[in-house]
Amino acid sequence: MAGTNSSIKIELQPSPVVILCEPQLGENIGTAARAMANFGLWELRLVRPRDGWPNEKAIAAAKKADHVMNNATVFETLEEAVKDLTLVYATTARMRGIQKDVIGPDEAGRRMASHIGGGQKAGLLFGREKWGLLNEEVALADMIVTLPVEPAFASLNIAQAVLILAYEWRRQSGQAETLPFGSLLHEVAPRSELVGLFEQLEGTLDESGFFTSPDKRPTVIDNLRTALTRGNFSSQEIRTLRGVISSIDRRHQRPNPKRLKPAPKTD
Amino acid sequence: MAGTNSSIKIELQPSPVVILCEPQLGENIGTAARAMANFGLWELRLVRPRDGWPNEKAIAAAKKADHVMNNATVFETLEEAVKDLTLVYATTARMRGIQKDVIGPDEAGRRMASHIGGGQKAGLLFGREKWGLLNEEVALADMIVTLPVEPAFASLNIAQAVLILAYEWRRQSGQAETLPFGSLLHEVAPRSELVGLFEQLEGTLDESGFFTSPDKRPTVIDNLRTALTRGNFSSQEIRTLRGVISSIDRRHQRPNPKRLKPAPKTD
Repeated sequence: MAGTNSSIKIELQPSPVVILCEPQLGENIGTAARAMANFGLWELRLVRPRDGWPNEKAIAAAKKADHVMNNATVFETLEEAVKDLTLVYATTARMRGIQKDVIGPDEAGRRMASHIGGGQKAGLLFGREKWGLLNEEVALADMIVTLPVEPAFASLNIAQAVLILAYEWRRQSGQAETLPFGSLLHEVAPRSELVGLFEQLEGTLDESGFFTSPDKRPTVIDNLRTALTRGNFSSQEIRTLRGVISSIDRRHQRPNPKRLKPAPKTD
Repeated sequence: MAGTNSSIKIELQPSPVVILCEPQLGENIGTAARAMANFGLWELRLVRPRDGWPNEKAIAAAKKADHVMNNATVFETLEEAVKDLTLVYATTARMRGIQKDVIGPDEAGRRMASHIGGGQKAGLLFGREKWGLLNEEVALADMIVTLPVEPAFASLNIAQAVLILAYEWRRQSGQAETLPFGSLLHEVAPRSELVGLFEQLEGTLDESGFFTSPDKRPTVIDNLRTALTRGNFSSQEIRTLRGVISSIDRRHQRPNPKRLKPAPKTD
């Protein structure tokens, strides 16, 4: 789904900090940065990235998420990386022997939205590609967040986990109420025009002998009107439909000896 | 986030069909299949995949999502691919001149959950990597779904768009209420043990001269008790804490001439 509008300036709003613990591959740092940028997150912290920092592969994978990459900071310890945060969630796909509450991304998004809305700072911890977070790292978090995956197919990469959490943050913080573009629905015609269509149609059907049983006529008409009302036609569409009816009707009025034969195929 | 449990059998539950229109790269078909599998979707339909089918790159990228790849079906036209569906959403990141309602993923998930829960079939259309869906393809859908992305950074790949929609389907269909693992919280100690801790602590503080102003003692005690109650301590933790208090207290009782000096640094 392409669609980035590069003429729009990015506004850095308060949002959760993303902390990657000992990320191994630069590509994953870059794709995580993009996932953050997709949903308006921008504060990235790296604890001992394996291949050092800055990392060219990370920058290449981040594509245009420069505002995230340029803001990224590196820490020697996780304790340093979380020291200004007052709410920290550890994301993990593994059952652990740790006595912490486990919540889903929607609950995490809701709590972060309320926390950050109250002027405080929240962060999300993500672990190494191969073996996730260490128990001592999870111990620094308030709760564990896990994704409601199919247990038989639970493997997500870091960028995907970041994407879901970032999406939930945006959704729950109310920013998602504004979609990037809205419905382009036309103006629905005034009801009188719709009734005009009905009357024309029903008159035509009366003349064509459509209503074989007079007692059923009102029910059939109700059903037709119900179906056509659901279309929410515009004035233009009603004019077109009335034209369609007239056209078919006129064809009926001018008996054509060929009309019972199928139309010749043209392709 | 690794964590797939391959000993669990995958159950194919009714879920939305994913339809990729003219996907170009096999890798993207494979990663979309994985994103589907993460949240329990399994029915993949491909309309005119550019590089034919089966596609080795797709199978490699899908890793273990075999149940999705093996079920994938190929269609010559989108009309054929949607013919058994009664609800179809077109996902797009672009504003279009099409008169359709535009909804977000949460609303789409809710409607699909209700539709599929009622025994009907729903599908999600995704477009080509480079230019998305054609207007004539969107015209076959009931509504447009778009993601609540940051407008200045709206570019998502197909697998990411599938991931968010699949997540929302799972969340709204109620399957997400069961997380893959739950909290492992200990049993909280009976309140009497907590009171025992309070009384020991307060007795110790009385003896140590902590309460300098007797009028304020009740308030200070209330605050301490409030703070300690929030810990939801287990019996074992309370025993440990009581040991901590006793230990500090005993140190106090045996005056040590060195105790006012800072402890020597050991590192």
